[in-house]
Amino acid sequence: MTAGESGIVESDWADSTDITVNWGDMDSLGHVNHSVFARWMETSRMKFFSDIGIMNLYESSNIGPILAKIEVDYKAPVIFPDVVNCKTSVSRIGRSSFDMAYVIRSSNQENKIVAVGKVVCVLIDYTSGKPVEIPDTLRKSILGIKE
Amino acid sequence: MTAGESGIVESDWADSTDITVNWGDMDSLGHVNHSVFARWMETSRMKFFSDIGIMNLYESSNIGPILAKIEVDYKAPVIFPDVVNCKTSVSRIGRSSFDMAYVIRSSNQENKIVAVGKVVCVLIDYTSGKPVEIPDTLRKSILGIKE
Amino acid sequence: MTAGESGIVESDWADSTDITVNWGDMDSLGHVNHSVFARWMETSRMKFFSDIGIMNLYESSNIGPILAKIEVDYKAPVIFPDVVNCKTSVSRIGRSSFDMAYVIRSSNQENKIVAVGKVVCVLIDYTSGKPVEIPDTLRKSILGIKE
Amino acid sequence: MTAGESGIVESDWADSTDITVNWGDMDSLGHVNHSVFARWMETSRMKFFSDIGIMNLYESSNIGPILAKIEVDYKAPVIFPDVVNCKTSVSRIGRSSFDMAYVIRSSNQENKIVAVGKVVCVLIDYTSGKPVEIPDTLRKSILGIKE
Repeated sequence: MTAGESGIVESDWADSTDITVNWGDMDSLGHVNHSVFARWMETSRMKFFSDIGIMNLYESSNIGPILAKIEVDYKAPVIFPDVVNCKTSVSRIGRSSFDMAYVIRSSNQENKIVAVGKVVCVLIDYTSGKPVEIPDTLRKSILGIKE
Repeated sequence: MTAGESGIVESDWADSTDITVNWGDMDSLGHVNHSVFARWMETSRMKFFSDIGIMNLYESSNIGPILAKIEVDYKAPVIFPDVVNCKTSVSRIGRSSFDMAYVIRSSNQENKIVAVGKVVCVLIDYTSGKPVEIPDTLRKSILGIKE
Repeated sequence: MTAGESGIVESDWADSTDITVNWGDMDSLGHVNHSVFARWMETSRMKFFSDIGIMNLYESSNIGPILAKIEVDYKAPVIFPDVVNCKTSVSRIGRSSFDMAYVIRSSNQENKIVAVGKVVCVLIDYTSGKPVEIPDTLRKSILGIKE
Repeated sequence: MTAGESGIVESDWADSTDITVNWGDMDSLGHVNHSVFARWMETSRMKFFSDIGIMNLYESSNIGPILAKIEVDYKAPVIFPDVVNCKTSVSRIGRSSFDMAYVIRSSNQENKIVAVGKVVCVLIDYTSGKPVEIPDTLRKSILGIKE
């Protein structure tokens, strides 16, 4: 997957978050550790989840998303100090699962793309542990359909 | 505070935990980041809390400990690969608060002490946010008094 | 990719590392944060890199591996306290890149597989930033060929 | 130590850094893990070190600071999403060591102080491992004396 392959045009990203790089995010190779990129994607994802009310659903019905899979393609190293920008959008929606695409840019490197990523989320009933169909209201929120 | 000043003899530590050092725990200076030592102390503390039933109290009554203060004295750097050993004990118990002492050793450095630490915990009612007196049962558990 | 698809039989894993779960590895959903699995894979990978002398190559010639891509499939949550086991092996070797497969098991869950993963590494000249052909000596080490 | 006891007036802080809270900074108690506060202090410290040229000294002469001790007093929990502000200044300078004071505020809590901290740094010769006297040029930089 490349940034282009995400098929998402700039104006269509559902969330855009600026995140400060901490000095301690760097590992002994002198650049930000690869696992930190996954945390940045998560921060953007959780903001989106909050926006579309998925966390409210979890609290009221014990139905919520789990992360089934993550993929990250590293394009360029990130070095402290920097502020990265992480954008995310739902790139596919199925019966009980959906994919999200991510692009991370470095403000210190003229907004160059430093990584692109993808996750697969599955909506499950935390009581039974089984996948459940995405409710219509949530589906509309995910797709950005205003009523 | 030094290890000696903790006043705790080897046999009296309430918890002893071996913890694997991850490569990513090292920062760009090539040794384990200072904040990771605080995580190791926490792992040992949480094992102790589980042992004395403090987490059960939290779940049944919404009364639980908060960390009010931490101090860590760094004695020697830790480098991957290594397994550290972290020991902890309650070193002071008051009306609603208690102190815990810590000592961390490196197995790759012949069990040399790499850090000593101390925390202050306060028992609070999570509903009111106010400190509460440590219940007698918990006090006895903390002091290791078997009935 | 599933664990089975890795095509690696139990005896053929090149590195096997037991890693202590820290309490602070858990996030606010009450299980180990997904990014920590990537750190465990890295710990196993760095042990393997050290074993085959790839870090010596980096120090003597400024040629070393970069992580181009990571994929993790999450199979089951991990909860503190636990000790996980992470195994890795090279699953493909090309001209200047190679893939590594991973399997992570939970000792508290009867060694159940909690995640499988894959990374793509590229050998680059850190001076030019360009990929370089994997030297024969390193290739033999990676393939486990003893001379 | 309280924020007031730091004896540093608002205009005299040497570094002020805004840091984005990541969702994954929260632990299973639902607020930012205590060890993350130490990382924020480090980010502010490293920016200050860069400003006063201490990292250049390290690269040119192998003389640099080590962290000998850290203390953090926790005043209030931090919850995602938030942006914290961390300020630091040198609060004492000795022959080969110096102290730094820290104050951390939450922008989501009307800039309320959520923690205050202190570290002791020692300047050492990384070759011999021994403390060295703080050079006059560095001393002047630390004290903010412009020539």
